[in-house]
Amino acid sequence: MIKIVAKMPVKADQVENFKEIARELVEKSAAEEGNISYTLNVSKADPNCLAFIEFWKDQAAIDSHNTTEHFTTILPKLAALCSGEPEVELFDLLF
Amino acid sequence: MIKIVAKMPVKADQVENFKEIARELVEKSAAEEGNISYTLNVSKADPNCLAFIEFWKDQAAIDSHNTTEHFTTILPKLAALCSGEPEVELFDLLF
Repeated sequence: MIKIVAKMPVKADQVENFKEIARELVEKSAAEEGNISYTLNVSKADPNCLAFIEFWKDQAAIDSHNTTEHFTTILPKLAALCSGEPEVELFDLLF
Repeated sequence: MIKIVAKMPVKADQVENFKEIARELVEKSAAEEGNISYTLNVSKADPNCLAFIEFWKDQAAIDSHNTTEHFTTILPKLAALCSGEPEVELFDLLF
């Protein structure tokens, strides 16, 4: 299993807009065959830091996800609401 | 639900030792009533960065976890194998 933590530094006045646009991405990504868990979360330390926390079956599932229409059309809209670059980290499950 | 991502910068020659000691912490934490998911993972970008990724029912579950014998006795052993301070981030689930 591969886990992704993608932290998005959202402009303070765009947080509600970000959540509204992200909902479709969350729903459609969670419905993909290779997805195990896909959620949007908010940092307890920074209310403008929203984080996608994603569990995927394997790299093929992530590669497939990255080509979906919901990913390629919605992510740029979300990136445009950020004040800086997203910070994306990938992890392999040990146990 | 509250999610924790706790990144541990492990000394290069202590990674296998860290994993061995962490296994009991993972198993006992995952068995707690308020735990939803508790795993040890390794960063794809840095093989010496091991990360606990934890899903908890609520803050009370985390408070209870923090007083368990497995947490209070094993975590210091793991911290002693690190080259720096752990980086711990907490997130509230939005959707």
